[in-house]
Amino acid sequence: MLYVIGLGLSDERDITVKGLDAVKSCERIYLEAYTSILMVDKEKLEAFYGKPVTIADREMVESDSDTILNNAQTVNVAFLVELSIPVETIHNASIMNAIGACGLQLYNFGQTISMVWFTETWRPDSWYPRVKENRDIGLHTLCLLDIKVKEQSIENMARGRLIYEPPRFMTVNTCLEQMLEIEELRDEKAYGPETLAIGCVRLGTPTQLFISGTMEQLLEEDFGTPLHSLVLIGRRMHVMEAEMVRDFCPEKYRAKFDEIYKRDYES
Amino acid sequence: MLYVIGLGLSDERDITVKGLDAVKSCERIYLEAYTSILMVDKEKLEAFYGKPVTIADREMVESDSDTILNNAQTVNVAFLVELSIPVETIHNASIMNAIGACGLQLYNFGQTISMVWFTETWRPDSWYPRVKENRDIGLHTLCLLDIKVKEQSIENMARGRLIYEPPRFMTVNTCLEQMLEIEELRDEKAYGPETLAIGCVRLGTPTQLFISGTMEQLLEEDFGTPLHSLVLIGRRMHVMEAEMVRDFCPEKYRAKFDEIYKRDYES
Repeated sequence: MLYVIGLGLSDERDITVKGLDAVKSCERIYLEAYTSILMVDKEKLEAFYGKPVTIADREMVESDSDTILNNAQTVNVAFLVELSIPVETIHNASIMNAIGACGLQLYNFGQTISMVWFTETWRPDSWYPRVKENRDIGLHTLCLLDIKVKEQSIENMARGRLIYEPPRFMTVNTCLEQMLEIEELRDEKAYGPETLAIGCVRLGTPTQLFISGTMEQLLEEDFGTPLHSLVLIGRRMHVMEAEMVRDFCPEKYRAKFDEIYKRDYES
Repeated sequence: MLYVIGLGLSDERDITVKGLDAVKSCERIYLEAYTSILMVDKEKLEAFYGKPVTIADREMVESDSDTILNNAQTVNVAFLVELSIPVETIHNASIMNAIGACGLQLYNFGQTISMVWFTETWRPDSWYPRVKENRDIGLHTLCLLDIKVKEQSIENMARGRLIYEPPRFMTVNTCLEQMLEIEELRDEKAYGPETLAIGCVRLGTPTQLFISGTMEQLLEEDFGTPLHSLVLIGRRMHVMEAEMVRDFCPEKYRAKFDEIYKRDYES
């Protein structure tokens, strides 16, 4: 059996009891380590499980998945989906539902988008029409921010050197900057500097933090260590949602928040 | 401290290790028991926790929340959100993210809607414009279906008798029937008998089941015991999503599925 087990959002104890039992029954345990940055060390997981854990990076998952699936017909292996091997998924929290902690109702979210880092020559804006669709209807938009784990520099890649850059994660600030840049270019009024938003960072961890304000205001905030996400607030925000979102608005931004709320949301 | 702890989707072992530790530290444990039907008995939970569990029904939560919050400033209590008492939320899976198991990407879902039971005189369709908004953009729609727990009959309510009806849950079939009735009335072409959909039942439990087909076809299916949910598939379904959804389509519906896919999705 191959178990695909959700680890939850923060530390080793966010695994479910069912998931932990499954891990303990496994002969091999692989840790997917390139679509998210782990908030907990591999060593901590190993101590908690009482078993060795193998990091499965992009190379392994994309070029060497046979190793992971080897004899999973007969022994238990923890990790990743593949066909014609029995698979059991053990669900857990993810940002897609935990984002409800920011005070906005999950019912009122539209499509989720992903934001990648712009480079000199590549500034993709395929997410923009999706944000606009959400905003036109009045829905909230969850923006998930890029992370880079085990990426090679162009030089190292060209020379075939397996040297990797240190992991990095996009901040709320970079995301806001890129979004405002694209709005200025396209000028379709999907949102603007005065659009209300919430920086949601380290969700589900002890240092979880929500800061609300306009996009322009949040540009100046320091949100600290990863992981960061951003929510653009839709026009249909309910008065009870607004009450909670306002609680996350620092004193210095309150007057502006109230002014915009009165102008854009109460009418 | 008041702990708000997610129990997950299926049985007592879906709680996280962190959640279980919190429960074990609590002097009182309340079980919210009116917005969902528990898939596990209170007795099973009590045996697993080694502690008594109090059912908090609608009456208790709405009229007697002081009992729940009593001295939560000094002792640990497991359950429910309230102001000016320290609260810690322990996240877990919910249908809002676990629905990804049906093969459709969470990124491609629009607003979630709730479907209530129609009565002779009350046939609300405020969800209809929301479905239409999702459909116009091409997004999937998750429909959460009504459940009735500890409801009084009108007669018993009028006579002030605290006698409750047995719990009941809406089936995928009832939801489809009501949706098609409203489409016929409003005729705004938000969807129709040939719209592709997936009945998603008992998500996250060992008897989890997905059946895809047209709304009309699914009307005839027997999905069995609770809980049921329904997904209307949006026009923007990716070819990789379609491949998995097709796997959930029974042989007898396949020809129709392929015909509609060719007509509505491939063009």
